[in-house]
Amino acid sequence: MSVFAAPLDDMRFALDLAGLSDIAALPRFAEATPDLIDAILEEAGKFGAGVLAPLNEPGDREGCALEPDGTVRLPDGAAEAYAQFVEGGWNSLPFSPDYGGQGLPGVVGAAVQEIWQAASMAWALCPLLTTGAIEALSAHGTDEQKALYLPKLVSGEWTGTMNLTESQAGSDLAQLRCKAEPAPDLGEGMYRIHGQKIFITHGDHELAENICHLVLARLPDAPPGVHGISLFLVPKVLVNPDGSLGEKNDVKAVSLEHKLGIHGSPTCVMAFGDDAGAVGTLIGAPHHGLACMFTMMNNARLNIGLQGVGIAERAYQQAVAYAHERVQGVNIAAPKDGPVTIIHHPHVRRMLLTMRAKTQAARALTYYAVAQADIVRAHPDEAVQAAAHARQDLLTPVVKAWCTEVGFEVADLGVQVHGGTGYIEETGASQHLRDARICRIYEGTNGIQAMDLVGRKILRDKGAAARTLFEEMRATQAALATAPDDVAGMARAFASALDDLEETTAWLLGHTSPASAQAACMPYTLLFGVAAGGWMMMRGALEARRRLDAGEGNPALWTAKIDTAQFYAGAILPFTRAHRAAAEAGPDSLMAMAEDAF
Amino acid sequence: MSVFAAPLDDMRFALDLAGLSDIAALPRFAEATPDLIDAILEEAGKFGAGVLAPLNEPGDREGCALEPDGTVRLPDGAAEAYAQFVEGGWNSLPFSPDYGGQGLPGVVGAAVQEIWQAASMAWALCPLLTTGAIEALSAHGTDEQKALYLPKLVSGEWTGTMNLTESQAGSDLAQLRCKAEPAPDLGEGMYRIHGQKIFITHGDHELAENICHLVLARLPDAPPGVHGISLFLVPKVLVNPDGSLGEKNDVKAVSLEHKLGIHGSPTCVMAFGDDAGAVGTLIGAPHHGLACMFTMMNNARLNIGLQGVGIAERAYQQAVAYAHERVQGVNIAAPKDGPVTIIHHPHVRRMLLTMRAKTQAARALTYYAVAQADIVRAHPDEAVQAAAHARQDLLTPVVKAWCTEVGFEVADLGVQVHGGTGYIEETGASQHLRDARICRIYEGTNGIQAMDLVGRKILRDKGAAARTLFEEMRATQAALATAPDDVAGMARAFASALDDLEETTAWLLGHTSPASAQAACMPYTLLFGVAAGGWMMMRGALEARRRLDAGEGNPALWTAKIDTAQFYAGAILPFTRAHRAAAEAGPDSLMAMAEDAF
Repeated sequence: MSVFAAPLDDMRFALDLAGLSDIAALPRFAEATPDLIDAILEEAGKFGAGVLAPLNEPGDREGCALEPDGTVRLPDGAAEAYAQFVEGGWNSLPFSPDYGGQGLPGVVGAAVQEIWQAASMAWALCPLLTTGAIEALSAHGTDEQKALYLPKLVSGEWTGTMNLTESQAGSDLAQLRCKAEPAPDLGEGMYRIHGQKIFITHGDHELAENICHLVLARLPDAPPGVHGISLFLVPKVLVNPDGSLGEKNDVKAVSLEHKLGIHGSPTCVMAFGDDAGAVGTLIGAPHHGLACMFTMMNNARLNIGLQGVGIAERAYQQAVAYAHERVQGVNIAAPKDGPVTIIHHPHVRRMLLTMRAKTQAARALTYYAVAQADIVRAHPDEAVQAAAHARQDLLTPVVKAWCTEVGFEVADLGVQVHGGTGYIEETGASQHLRDARICRIYEGTNGIQAMDLVGRKILRDKGAAARTLFEEMRATQAALATAPDDVAGMARAFASALDDLEETTAWLLGHTSPASAQAACMPYTLLFGVAAGGWMMMRGALEARRRLDAGEGNPALWTAKIDTAQFYAGAILPFTRAHRAAAEAGPDSLMAMAEDAF
Repeated sequence: MSVFAAPLDDMRFALDLAGLSDIAALPRFAEATPDLIDAILEEAGKFGAGVLAPLNEPGDREGCALEPDGTVRLPDGAAEAYAQFVEGGWNSLPFSPDYGGQGLPGVVGAAVQEIWQAASMAWALCPLLTTGAIEALSAHGTDEQKALYLPKLVSGEWTGTMNLTESQAGSDLAQLRCKAEPAPDLGEGMYRIHGQKIFITHGDHELAENICHLVLARLPDAPPGVHGISLFLVPKVLVNPDGSLGEKNDVKAVSLEHKLGIHGSPTCVMAFGDDAGAVGTLIGAPHHGLACMFTMMNNARLNIGLQGVGIAERAYQQAVAYAHERVQGVNIAAPKDGPVTIIHHPHVRRMLLTMRAKTQAARALTYYAVAQADIVRAHPDEAVQAAAHARQDLLTPVVKAWCTEVGFEVADLGVQVHGGTGYIEETGASQHLRDARICRIYEGTNGIQAMDLVGRKILRDKGAAARTLFEEMRATQAALATAPDDVAGMARAFASALDDLEETTAWLLGHTSPASAQAACMPYTLLFGVAAGGWMMMRGALEARRRLDAGEGNPALWTAKIDTAQFYAGAILPFTRAHRAAAEAGPDSLMAMAEDAF
């Protein structure tokens, strides 16, 4: 079994790059002292490594089951770990004290979330979805709804789910058919829901006494398409006005999917209203459900990016451990000394450094994007809030798409570092590959993210939010150029990547047809990710150089940070040029071929 | 279940590009008339689609088992299909008529092999390994050994295996410990073998009445390292001098691996000589076993490249079928017309065209490399033989590494085209991903291939073989430039890729330290693959243009060929620049970081 330790040093570094000290200085986060944050990360690391990580491989082997009595059984130990998780207050970390939360910055919550995902992604999907439900309810629920549901969701005593997909409506939510009918007999604002949802992660389980399903459905007078969708909260067990639990609702898991990975997480087909109708309450305005759900989706998308980071970290640690232990081949620097561990071999180091550099870049970028949400929530200056909001909107699809591509690529390299052993399931390396694969698909496929990036985040504001970011990236480039040699040497590679990013953005703004946008969106997103991740690595190198010069902390950490950034600059940044060429090739070569010629 | 049809049109096209008509015109292949070859491909297509393809998904689900009585059970239907395979004479296609083979060109055998691999890679591994055993025995066996073993191996009544790996000796065969002792009491040239081998594909099964294990082991007087390894043939059942079967040998499968994929193929731990010693006969000279095994390995490496092509083809067909069927989202060209199949969406087409273009490029490159072996075997002119030999040696690691990277990438895109459905095992898309993953690892990891390419195929002859190839590639570039517009438009992209290939090769020849070579080898191999695959696409476009102009055949095929080449030129060739940058970044950034800083 692979050993996991939370990468606290790099997490702290990424938190610093994300501006945690400025965020923690905001009045709203007055209690988030550096000592408290440190203590939280330490304890989370212990909980992740000690309680969750040991569940990961057995949970994969055992999987979930729909029992004859209709209950969904999770792997051994999942429920006990969840009880400890709730008991330890881990679920409530970033939420408002108004509902029992601890009010910590979201970016600290992100670091902790990364630990859970790295320790056991399948298990950690459950609280991840609860987080999304809390965000949606906080933003769109009535005071009464919040009072009734939020305290239990914040504590983790109840969990949450997202119910969007139907078999004919995946990426295309306009095709939704699930129905909601007003049920004034049940009380004001109550509805009966009928329909089936698929791919519902942790749709049922026995970890919590209740599950709050957020369900998209159509009201009887709904217009067709995405502007006729409403959002409902449908609890597994009905909740009385005093908060006590009532009868079981008319909702159940009818089957579980047999998946490539995340076997420890039940992916359910959910039946709503097979009998009298599942009772639900409307969240937000009628027909505006998609906008409400997007609050949840945007949160979830950043968290899926964190899954990419977490699984990459887990795979990296396992590969490094193997490379330190596996003796094979001779040291090219001293071939006569006999066999050495494979970490001595340059081509193995290329794999490990690719894993390391991309993981660190993805971590820093994700934390940075999450930190923007803290600024939006807590900064007193509205202009600062607005800028942070635009930045977060811009980066959310990049984080979701690129960091999950990174998660999969890193897990894949982890298998390769293991050689033949990596293909054997007992090794555990291939589980990370299987688990990581879903992140590129769910919460909006990466293709959907790419269309979101180009359509809504670049073309809609004519590149305004992007230009503001590019200015900051250029400032980093200027700072690199005047830094000591080891750091300055990266300025040219970074400048070239920025050229690609800026010029491809300009190309997009000059080619606004839907065909051009859709044709270019995926390579553009990858270009953006590589460049934005590179920005984080360059900022990290500058900060590491500063700490070295100032004699702060552990110099070995800062030297390794610069080494890793140099690898990123030399081996990873050059891919922006290839993605740019693919993006700017335009739609003609994609659309030329006749459909039936494929 | 996914439907598979052998891609006969593109296979014929790739055979033409590989020079089949010239090869078939050689006296040795006088019987290989176009009509016969066509009939063989048609029938192979039927056998693959009708008999093998239906086994693929059930075989993955059922897997293999080591029964209490020590026999290895394959999935239902495997044995019946194998019996039909042998009965149909499929195994003997490319082998010498001296031993019952049909004497067809190897490149025709490759096309047929691709069909088997695409239809069911796990099943088809068994005859693939037999092919390698036949090659090694043909090249290094005595007349007596050949007479005793080859007829049954050629017919397929017996199968073959490769026994290299031991737990401490994977990529590093110098660490082999398996022992062989002369056993003159058993007859001249007989040995007793003791030791354990791991990762033995189809190491045991009940498909055939005997299995010829080719086993690497050390003689008592063997020097240490790779120059003290000898090759032995160890049959599962001893063979009497008259060819009849004798007693069971002291060799058995002691356990099966639980793997990520190829569940229908038993991967065995083999125990040789647990009792009195496994009886074997020496193949080739003592201590020269590695060279003998490399005959088998080189054959196997091209065949693993074919597996990459086959699994890519299978994944591509399945993704296209889904994209033709799945309705989701609107046509950007006519949004008011309502939902359309996803093949209308540019970003889906990018995935499908990437799959298609890389699969076709990999197919053409692999057939071309295999065709060189036909020229080596059958061409009357020794200079032509030598040139073909050098070309095959150069391309073998490129084919093995790049085509298997392509196989995995294409299978991965196939999952993505399916969206959430792709993650569900019943869909079958993820099986291709799991199956394809091993091809990058076995028969020498792709890192080992990359070291072979740079060390033995570029540096050893100071780039001579590569330069000869580059001259032909430049001639193709010149032909492109003077072709009609649709083809000429690709000349610049191809020229740029060739610049990268030539200049990085020059860089390698100027940086010959082992550290530089090992650091650069993987990106250089990918660069080489993209450029060489691109060469095939460009040659294909020229030929397609010629056929269009000449009014030959089906114009829709040639138009699609040019469309696919244009996509390759615009979206895939630009990656040579990024791989070049990574290669030329040199070893410093790989080796700078302290081992314990990882």
